[in-house]
Amino acid sequence: MQRIYFDNAATTALDPAVLEAMMPYLTEKFGNPSSIYSYGREARLAVENARKTVARILHAHPGELFFTSGGTESTNTALTAAVRDLGCRHIVTSPLEHHATLHTGEFLQQEAAVARSFVKLLPDGHIDLDHLEELLKNSRVRTLVTLMHANNEIGNLLDIQKTGEICRRYNAVFHCDTVQTVGHYPIDLKNLYVHFINAAAHKFQGPKGVGLLYVNENIKIKPLVHGGGQERNMRAGTENIYGIVGFATALERAEARHEADSRYILDLKMYMAAALQKHIPGIRFNGDWNGRSLYTVLNVGFPKTEKTEMLLFNLDIAGICASGGSACSSGASTGSHVISALYPDTAQVPVRFSFSRHNTREEVDAVVRTLGTLVD
Amino acid sequence: MQRIYFDNAATTALDPAVLEAMMPYLTEKFGNPSSIYSYGREARLAVENARKTVARILHAHPGELFFTSGGTESTNTALTAAVRDLGCRHIVTSPLEHHATLHTGEFLQQEAAVARSFVKLLPDGHIDLDHLEELLKNSRVRTLVTLMHANNEIGNLLDIQKTGEICRRYNAVFHCDTVQTVGHYPIDLKNLYVHFINAAAHKFQGPKGVGLLYVNENIKIKPLVHGGGQERNMRAGTENIYGIVGFATALERAEARHEADSRYILDLKMYMAAALQKHIPGIRFNGDWNGRSLYTVLNVGFPKTEKTEMLLFNLDIAGICASGGSACSSGASTGSHVISALYPDTAQVPVRFSFSRHNTREEVDAVVRTLGTLVD
Repeated sequence: MQRIYFDNAATTALDPAVLEAMMPYLTEKFGNPSSIYSYGREARLAVENARKTVARILHAHPGELFFTSGGTESTNTALTAAVRDLGCRHIVTSPLEHHATLHTGEFLQQEAAVARSFVKLLPDGHIDLDHLEELLKNSRVRTLVTLMHANNEIGNLLDIQKTGEICRRYNAVFHCDTVQTVGHYPIDLKNLYVHFINAAAHKFQGPKGVGLLYVNENIKIKPLVHGGGQERNMRAGTENIYGIVGFATALERAEARHEADSRYILDLKMYMAAALQKHIPGIRFNGDWNGRSLYTVLNVGFPKTEKTEMLLFNLDIAGICASGGSACSSGASTGSHVISALYPDTAQVPVRFSFSRHNTREEVDAVVRTLGTLVD
Repeated sequence: MQRIYFDNAATTALDPAVLEAMMPYLTEKFGNPSSIYSYGREARLAVENARKTVARILHAHPGELFFTSGGTESTNTALTAAVRDLGCRHIVTSPLEHHATLHTGEFLQQEAAVARSFVKLLPDGHIDLDHLEELLKNSRVRTLVTLMHANNEIGNLLDIQKTGEICRRYNAVFHCDTVQTVGHYPIDLKNLYVHFINAAAHKFQGPKGVGLLYVNENIKIKPLVHGGGQERNMRAGTENIYGIVGFATALERAEARHEADSRYILDLKMYMAAALQKHIPGIRFNGDWNGRSLYTVLNVGFPKTEKTEMLLFNLDIAGICASGGSACSSGASTGSHVISALYPDTAQVPVRFSFSRHNTREEVDAVVRTLGTLVD
């Protein structure tokens, strides 16, 4: 059976050209970058060249970039360090954040006794920036603001520039989870007020198991993982060289294709929205879907019926991959904390469709046709 | 130039058969294991089959095994959890441990105000188990013992059974860093008193960026990395599926080859020791090299002269890869904390040669010949 993969916000297929760039480091160039001899030096060179590539694309200094095992580890490092090393005693966040942020925040609230406030949401799912300002104005202690750049479930985009300016005004530490935007949008770190951002290569056609943490050069933090002096004492453990090479190559290719890809994928999203509106009665689109929103994500609320409750399973049987929210909450039983927080009173079955450049209008047609038979 | 790689304790070349097993997960089987649809389920199956394979080989329950990003992260998780979740207020360790253990211990000493004691060493570099017992007898608080199974620099093997029994007698928590022994020795976890062990695939011809943490089923700990529910809520972050498949495949192959490989590699080590003794005057072998020692490691102390101080660099120029200690301390300037702790009064230039099944007697001959010209 031909499968249709509409869950690119969960993970993407590794770009064959990225794999090709990784292959030498999966075969003959296997050295430990900390070793001084030839095999080590060629591995070290690969890691540092990767860092320079990423620095150029994100407009950061190479010294501000640290490779990690993924977006989640990066978020954990940032939040932990903000509390432990930067003296933040108050975390301002939103109920729509990824679990990496929510659960690390919860842990720090218990473990380090920091206060935690949740910023209000506007009806379309955007963060109420006036309320953010109010929270910061009333905060008597150093505060960490952690808000995601793009919501992974509904696609809403934060105005990172404006949010940064508010944080600057109140001398807050700002962590922005950019897992859904690095590799999908241009990010210019030298013109943003932000202390930490994080990324995961597998969200933009890179390999799993490798991520990035940006730490603004003006702050000094300790690592989450202690040991050898790798990553300039900021992340111990033998480097995942082929992963790091894959991260940089995937980002480079995403940057080069950005204009064409974003236009193509946005067109797919809008084409699907129009087709759904035409053919499926009673649906809604969650979040600010045709406003400030990821071009990759369309979150559709289906009216709750006996049929739609089994929708994800039936889509799967038809070879269609989509999810109820983040991958972590894909099981129908667990539900989506984002949709529940945003639309507590609405009985809907949310399905997130998320696209890549490999998807086509023909696939959209096929999915809409199948949905027609499943919900009717 | 033909290179001779005698630094297999730092990292090993990925076994082509392991890469082959990983390839489907680097190409078409790219799903997120947390997703409920077909792509996700095939990834989930791969992860859980890998866990079962590892469990069978280590004689553990699958529920006791957690995949991480590497040996260092696993050590950090174990030590942090022992202090935070198991109430250990005293860490007993040795000065010969890996930096992952030493620096995490140091951090916990500062951060969590736990006491830290260093167990005495015997002249041959083995842990003084009588002193360990004395330390535990006099410890008034719950104590974590963290001692490595095999020293990565000198190769000394700990009697893990006996150490475990001492820990059991005093109700201590026991973490054993098995990074140099998993994949090299049979390990039978159901017949050991040990709470945590850790491993890294790249030490036994598996991929970099993936490790293992064993947590004995009788203890309950919290994760180091918070977020999604991966690894049964013990290690958040999208799984490095191809890495996990690589870990299990490499371990499976290492187990199958263990008898032949260990015999072959031990012969190489002894052959090199004899050749060195015959041809290079004034050398010594560090640690219990021909006693309870890794068959993979031979640590040679060269008399300190103007020539030997540049030995590693000159070996590199001759295409020979060896190290001064762990990869982290491969630079001649930093030196080895293990050799300094063990032989504080000896002026020597230590060089670790570490072997794999890909090395040959001809390579040993070539290295000994080159050493003859370099040190004379």
